[in-house]
Amino acid sequence: MKIDLNCDLGEGFGAWSMGDDAAMMRIATSVNVACGFHAGDPDIMHKTVAMAKAHGVAIGAHPGFRDLHGFGRRPVPGITAAEIENLVAYQIGALQAVASLAGHKVTHVKAHGALSNVACQDDMTARAIAAAIKAVDPKLIFVVLANSKLVDAGEAAGLAMVHEVFADRAYEDDGNLVSRRKPGAVLHDPAVIAERVLRMAQDGAVVSMTGKVIKMRTDTVCIHGDTAGAVDIARGVRTALEANGITVAPFARS
Amino acid sequence: MKIDLNCDLGEGFGAWSMGDDAAMMRIATSVNVACGFHAGDPDIMHKTVAMAKAHGVAIGAHPGFRDLHGFGRRPVPGITAAEIENLVAYQIGALQAVASLAGHKVTHVKAHGALSNVACQDDMTARAIAAAIKAVDPKLIFVVLANSKLVDAGEAAGLAMVHEVFADRAYEDDGNLVSRRKPGAVLHDPAVIAERVLRMAQDGAVVSMTGKVIKMRTDTVCIHGDTAGAVDIARGVRTALEANGITVAPFARS
Amino acid sequence: MKIDLNCDLGEGFGAWSMGDDAAMMRIATSVNVACGFHAGDPDIMHKTVAMAKAHGVAIGAHPGFRDLHGFGRRPVPGITAAEIENLVAYQIGALQAVASLAGHKVTHVKAHGALSNVACQDDMTARAIAAAIKAVDPKLIFVVLANSKLVDAGEAAGLAMVHEVFADRAYEDDGNLVSRRKPGAVLHDPAVIAERVLRMAQDGAVVSMTGKVIKMRTDTVCIHGDTAGAVDIARGVRTALEANGITVAPFARS
Amino acid sequence: MKIDLNCDLGEGFGAWSMGDDAAMMRIATSVNVACGFHAGDPDIMHKTVAMAKAHGVAIGAHPGFRDLHGFGRRPVPGITAAEIENLVAYQIGALQAVASLAGHKVTHVKAHGALSNVACQDDMTARAIAAAIKAVDPKLIFVVLANSKLVDAGEAAGLAMVHEVFADRAYEDDGNLVSRRKPGAVLHDPAVIAERVLRMAQDGAVVSMTGKVIKMRTDTVCIHGDTAGAVDIARGVRTALEANGITVAPFARS
Repeated sequence: MKIDLNCDLGEGFGAWSMGDDAAMMRIATSVNVACGFHAGDPDIMHKTVAMAKAHGVAIGAHPGFRDLHGFGRRPVPGITAAEIENLVAYQIGALQAVASLAGHKVTHVKAHGALSNVACQDDMTARAIAAAIKAVDPKLIFVVLANSKLVDAGEAAGLAMVHEVFADRAYEDDGNLVSRRKPGAVLHDPAVIAERVLRMAQDGAVVSMTGKVIKMRTDTVCIHGDTAGAVDIARGVRTALEANGITVAPFARS
Repeated sequence: MKIDLNCDLGEGFGAWSMGDDAAMMRIATSVNVACGFHAGDPDIMHKTVAMAKAHGVAIGAHPGFRDLHGFGRRPVPGITAAEIENLVAYQIGALQAVASLAGHKVTHVKAHGALSNVACQDDMTARAIAAAIKAVDPKLIFVVLANSKLVDAGEAAGLAMVHEVFADRAYEDDGNLVSRRKPGAVLHDPAVIAERVLRMAQDGAVVSMTGKVIKMRTDTVCIHGDTAGAVDIARGVRTALEANGITVAPFARS
Repeated sequence: MKIDLNCDLGEGFGAWSMGDDAAMMRIATSVNVACGFHAGDPDIMHKTVAMAKAHGVAIGAHPGFRDLHGFGRRPVPGITAAEIENLVAYQIGALQAVASLAGHKVTHVKAHGALSNVACQDDMTARAIAAAIKAVDPKLIFVVLANSKLVDAGEAAGLAMVHEVFADRAYEDDGNLVSRRKPGAVLHDPAVIAERVLRMAQDGAVVSMTGKVIKMRTDTVCIHGDTAGAVDIARGVRTALEANGITVAPFARS
Repeated sequence: MKIDLNCDLGEGFGAWSMGDDAAMMRIATSVNVACGFHAGDPDIMHKTVAMAKAHGVAIGAHPGFRDLHGFGRRPVPGITAAEIENLVAYQIGALQAVASLAGHKVTHVKAHGALSNVACQDDMTARAIAAAIKAVDPKLIFVVLANSKLVDAGEAAGLAMVHEVFADRAYEDDGNLVSRRKPGAVLHDPAVIAERVLRMAQDGAVVSMTGKVIKMRTDTVCIHGDTAGAVDIARGVRTALEANGITVAPFARS
């Protein structure tokens, strides 16, 4: 049995940093690299890619809306499908080129923040992201949230996909994430989270807030590294998986 | 006999535009597309690339320093070779991806503004640009100013190069451009300019300010389109070339 | 009888310009100066203010959302009242300081683009703008769209207000602007527009799309200068007003 | 005997933070607030000002070059005196307005990073900063580095000035800071630093690298808070001063 742990990294900008990239590089097997629109810049991208290469970690583009000030967490009202295609393609290509410079290769694409949130529910946005990936390189793997519009869009575009679940988020009975506005939406107990991810990897299932067991394809588990506590949680997840004989490895060869 | 006419386009940003791109697309045979750091954005890049494709015009990346406010015309003191490599690679890759989306292909790279001015005189900068091009795609053609450090850097990197001269700029006896601070540095008379470019194409020579004939390899002539007058000058150049049996065509097949 | 003509100016950024500021300075009596968030920069602000001073034209702050790429025309989902207060105060203060440097004085504030559109319909936004104005300088005049939430917010804050109508926009029977998505929303015939503004000034009334006469307080008429045609329309308005004995003058002494 | 401790704060941007502002607010008596050009945004400015007010800490504007990516640490070649005046005035006014909203008042101005470094050695830049301060509010206090061009410019403009020394920087025999490129330029031992600042406060003197005692007017001591170690150093400085009967208080009443 095998699973991938993915993490969003390279989210600084200029003199600012965010999270503990060095620690997460030792835990994650795939990292999603910010491409300069909501975070990241060419230098941070290069540094992140080089570190990933040194650790045998796969890299993906993590495109977001043009919104440094809001960290890409705000939707952009009225943006068109063509504009989304353009900004996603731009960011993927930028990372591919920086990766070439660092001697590494981009294997996947995962949308960031509001771009992802909108796309999970909106066909037009999901299809625009898939179209951009396909145009830039149809062999790039599309990281999709299980049960979202991203899955449909990836299928329609004929893209290879990996399905993602969240280590520290609660799920509704229908397989959707519990809204962050509801209590209990985010899990904090490292032991609970590790146990939960282990079950995802072993059974391909997640237990919903009401206790229902939901079958869910799980190729990669999203872990966070923004705080010291998050790094410990992530480390606990990896340890639990390996202690139970699950191989933790990138979903793709770069 | 054959020559290319190149022009910097796609230099708007968001709601702002600069120059008459539509007019210049009918005159130029290669265009250098701003990549978002000193001008341009993914939407303008897509529009510019699509227009170029429709007109059979070749496209190149036109990377500049990160400086929207200064239009990339200010040097960046203390920037390192690695930082230049990163920002040049980033911009080339971004354009390649947007070009894929528009069904066109990037054939060349020409540095913009202060990045180009610094590189013409500074080995480190010139080599960093060449290194970025080579890493991203060693088949990309490097557009270099004749007699500059760019030529040495391109040679050292083993890149294919095309040599550029300026239609509307005066030259010193040593083949360098007359500084814009000196009177007469920029030519304005359409007839003089057309005659001058014709001679460059026919003889591979340019006449310096003092009247000296300087042999100069001329693969492409840079024409400007920022003002109404500039468009007329550019049209005059093209008409003069064609009337004298010179083929005006891209230096590269895309 | 007396009326003010106001116009949005200083909407360039760095090397980019927008509209014919020099022409509009000769027609408008109050100008709303972009403050750097959706357009404008300290140099353009200074130039605009100095030009206004030279022409005896009053100046106001024209704050918008932080959105250079979208020219402040996109709403910012989820922005809080406190964040709106902060960005409006910031922009007003910035213009006041630049105006001091140019020896002129800010008399009024008019919200730009999406910030204005949202505020016209949303109490929270309208009150946040009014609160910022009051905190920075309670003597600043609030330019409000007749019949909008801005009027209520200005009243609640105890601000002096001037009511604005649009020279080139059609009105619904209820006094609201016809949505730009509907045909006929924007008027183009210079004679029709001049006649319409004259009636606003003389009768304090505007004729709706269906022909209904709507009484509407009219202290200032918004004119546009983004295109050559717009300048001619604006000039026609001013000429018509003066030919009919209406004094065209700023609503405030700076 | 009395001295002020000043610190640069509010240096985050959007989701990014820098340094431990909450800790430094308990140690510093005057803080210099980033105004959005090299760091800071209206929300961070408001939060910083409100925190300063709550702690009885004086606030000053900390204007820098427009350079978020480089944190204002890079000079801007070719920038004119007028452009410096404009950007300094803009930033001061922006902070004044945000401070009004938070019920606090700006007492001083201290240039940031490369703007300060350039101004310390360049008359034109120093005079442009002083001219901007004077135009915005001639009662604002100019924080100047002892022995720099800032002192001359402040005097010529007739501004009130406070002289600043650095707690953790070594000095040359001529009273200039030792260049950061030289070994020993930055001090790290908390005890050495505390002893040094105490002597500055008691004797108005600093000991140079070679052991020479240099008389130096010392109104305020710059302390840093970017790292955990820096906070401890700053706390040690304040404790040493107070233990020796020196009053630590703002140089100005707000």
